[in-house]
Parts: sequence; C-alpha cells; structure tokens
Amino acid sequence: MRRIKLTLGYIGTAYSGWQRQIGQDTVQERLERAVSLLTKEQVSVQGSGRTDTGVHAIGQVAHFDTESSIPIKNFVTGLNHFLPDDIRITSAEETDGSFHARYSAKEKTYCYALYEGETDIAVLANRAVRVKNRLSVAKMQRAATAFVGEHDFRSFQSTNADTTTSVRTVKSVRVVRKDGLIRIYATANGFLYNMVRLMVGTLVRAGKGEIDADGIKELIARADKHAVTEVMPACGLYLVEVKY
Amino acid sequence: MRRIKLTLGYIGTAYSGWQRQIGQDTVQERLERAVSLLTKEQVSVQGSGRTDTGVHAIGQVAHFDTESSIPIKNFVTGLNHFLPDDIRITSAEETDGSFHARYSAKEKTYCYALYEGETDIAVLANRAVRVKNRLSVAKMQRAATAFVGEHDFRSFQSTNADTTTSVRTVKSVRVVRKDGLIRIYATANGFLYNMVRLMVGTLVRAGKGEIDADGIKELIARADKHAVTEVMPACGLYLVEVKY
Repeated sequence: MRRIKLTLGYIGTAYSGWQRQIGQDTVQERLERAVSLLTKEQVSVQGSGRTDTGVHAIGQVAHFDTESSIPIKNFVTGLNHFLPDDIRITSAEETDGSFHARYSAKEKTYCYALYEGETDIAVLANRAVRVKNRLSVAKMQRAATAFVGEHDFRSFQSTNADTTTSVRTVKSVRVVRKDGLIRIYATANGFLYNMVRLMVGTLVRAGKGEIDADGIKELIARADKHAVTEVMPACGLYLVEVKY
Repeated sequence: MRRIKLTLGYIGTAYSGWQRQIGQDTVQERLERAVSLLTKEQVSVQGSGRTDTGVHAIGQVAHFDTESSIPIKNFVTGLNHFLPDDIRITSAEETDGSFHARYSAKEKTYCYALYEGETDIAVLANRAVRVKNRLSVAKMQRAATAFVGEHDFRSFQSTNADTTTSVRTVKSVRVVRKDGLIRIYATANGFLYNMVRLMVGTLVRAGKGEIDADGIKELIARADKHAVTEVMPACGLYLVEVKY
C-alpha cells in the first residue's frame, strides 16, 4: 500500500465546497472520481479540512491510499487529465502511512481578498469582495494584533460549529495593500468554522475606525458565539497553505 | 437624444465574444438587453471593437443613444442590476453625438498574462496562459522593440481578417514580470485580428531565445499573413484601455 500526498488548488465558485455530499458537486468527490479513474480502484481522499461553498484553495492538501504502481511523477498529469480545469493538482509525493492530511496538519494559512470602491470590477467577480468604504490598512493591522496568540475564539465561530474546543493559536495576521487589493493573511494551528470570515469582517470594521485592538480583545474575552455577526462572503477566501 | 458612454469590464469565459450573433450569448447582447430593460427602449450598443470568445476586458468602451431621462449617475447601478456579475459597468458619462465608441478611438491597450511552470494553477484557469519553459523577460523586451512604430502588420494578422489596411502604429510593448506572472502590455492606434495574440506568441519564442528583434523585423517585412502561426489562447488576453 502506498500513501500519496497531493497539493492542489481550486476555484470554489462552481462547487458545493470540499466535502462529499450526495447530489452535490464537490471538490472531494471530483478528486475521488479522478483518482478512481486513474488507479482503477475505489479510493477515499482525505483533505486537510473542509472548505465551504465558493471558497478557493491555492495549497489544499489531501491524501489517499493506493495499490497502484503508477510512478509518482505521473500522478499530477494523470489526475489533472481527469479533473476540470478549475481543480488542479500542483504536486504529488509518496509519504508514509503515519501521514494524515487532516490529523498531521500543524498550521494553516488563509488569505482573504478585498477591494474598495463604488462599483464592482468584473475580473474580481467571485475572486475578491468589494467594500464601499476606503479602509485604513494601518488601523486594520494594529487591530489584527489582538487575534495573535492562544485564545478561546468562541466569539469568532459560527453557531453551527460542532468542535470540542474553541481554543486556537493564531500565529500571525498580516494586512497588505497591493495592486488595488487588500489581502489579509491569517496563520493558525487551526481555524474554527467561519473564523477567518468573522475575523475579516471585524477587521473591515477596524479599517473604518469602528473598532480597535482593545475592542477585539473584548469580543474575544466574551467567548460568546453570538458576539460577532459580520461574516464576510465565501468568495474572497483562499486556503493558501497547510504545514505539517 | 442623449448619447451615453460606458466603460465596462468582463470575464469573457462564458461568452461567445463581444459581438451580437444569433443564438450566441455575447457581451454586446447582454449589454443591449440590460440597457433595454433599464430605459424601456430598444437600444443598439456600439463597442470600441470586438473581442473574441474568451477574451476579457477591464476597460472596454461602448456607447448608446437614449431618450430616457434617467440621471447619468444611475446608469452604473441600474445597468449592473440587469447584468450578470462577470460583466460590470464601471462608469457612465454623457457625451455629445460626435462621440463614437469605435470610430473616435485613438488608442487601445491590451494586456496578455502568462505564467511559467510544469503544472497548471487553478486560480489562473481561463485568466492566464501557462508556458512550460522559463522565459527571459529581458530577451522578450528587447525583441518587442521591433514591433514599435508604424508598420504593415500583415504578418501579424489572422487569415480571416477583412480590414482594408494592415498598417498600424504600435506605440509601446512592455514586458513585466511580477507576482509569478509575465504581463505583456501592447498599445497601438488599433490592432488587426489576432494581432496581439500573434505578437505574444512570437515574444514567447523570443523569451526562449528562438527569435530576436531582427527576426521579428524580418517577419514584419515579409508582410505575409501566413508568416506567423503562433496564436496564443484567447483566455490570457485583456482589453485594458481605449483612449479617445
């Protein structure tokens, strides 16, 4: 038995998220179908975690087990042959059986893309989210420091979450203005359901001067899953990297 | 009668190009339908020029005439309301009857987006074109100087072209490597059919060291519409700006 680790990107617009669901077109199901077509085996593919409908990935990681003797270098082109062009494998490597795409993950980085303006921009449709107000990136960056560290992020979790603990360690949050976009990069040992989208919604408020680092600290301290309601749309969110 | 000048962007992936054609979903037809729904008039919309199936625009310009008394500032939101989100009006202004989106155009700028690598990147699907080889941007930029100036560009025209003259003045061609992309910006008083895509195909050869500025001068001098066959795919091409 060989365990194969895949790194892949996708544009989530056309899919009902990562996770396999009956009657839905999902990334996991597309990937499992491609692996099955390539290996002629019935294969289950494990991802590093779910992404929601409309969320994109640049560096999602997944693994599967196979008895196939296909050379490792042929998995990238072979799988891409059976995948639609909005899902692309970027690398495949052989790993040992102790590796698990989800349970071995140490750190994840997400990016959220925003732009400011009065009118929508077609080339950014479903790729970045427009905010009307001009935002202060300096204020956003200062406010973002409140997220860094180990905290109970219950306030930055959507109500339909089912995780056992809501304590997470945020390593960094960077706010970068470049080429007409504001990109917010968040790295943590893990994220709760909708956590990044709630953090970004709060940082947008910070960029408008409505809340600062102290205000965010208070929200975190409340540990109330109804405390924050500004969920940003899925289409601005990208899973950038999973570290093991 | 009021003449309205529109600036708009679109992602061309879902459309059979700009120009209205029976039974095809085109940008012009979508725009005409939106204007008709907004103004309650049967309106013909003139663009600065056609773009092919799959070609994108950031700053396409179009005009139409209307008897409607809708305030000019309401055209952007009003039309966007009736347009799909991959076609977005970015500005609307009132102009006089002497303005014509096509015939008044003095200069157009296109951009072509490339990336290098062994594997496709999902977020760039239909937005940029992958080339396998690592390209020398310095060589491409040096070679590109051969295009600048007034030339008969018959060699850089697809055979199904029907224009009366193939003389065009190229003002500049810039090759820029940034953020993992190579972007080629070309500005001219006008472009022949497939001219940018043939120029870029030739510049990719230059980036591989297969042709230089002298070689391109020779190709131009041949004035033979069969001289150049490297047509790059439509999905890397963006109409960036039309100047009047």
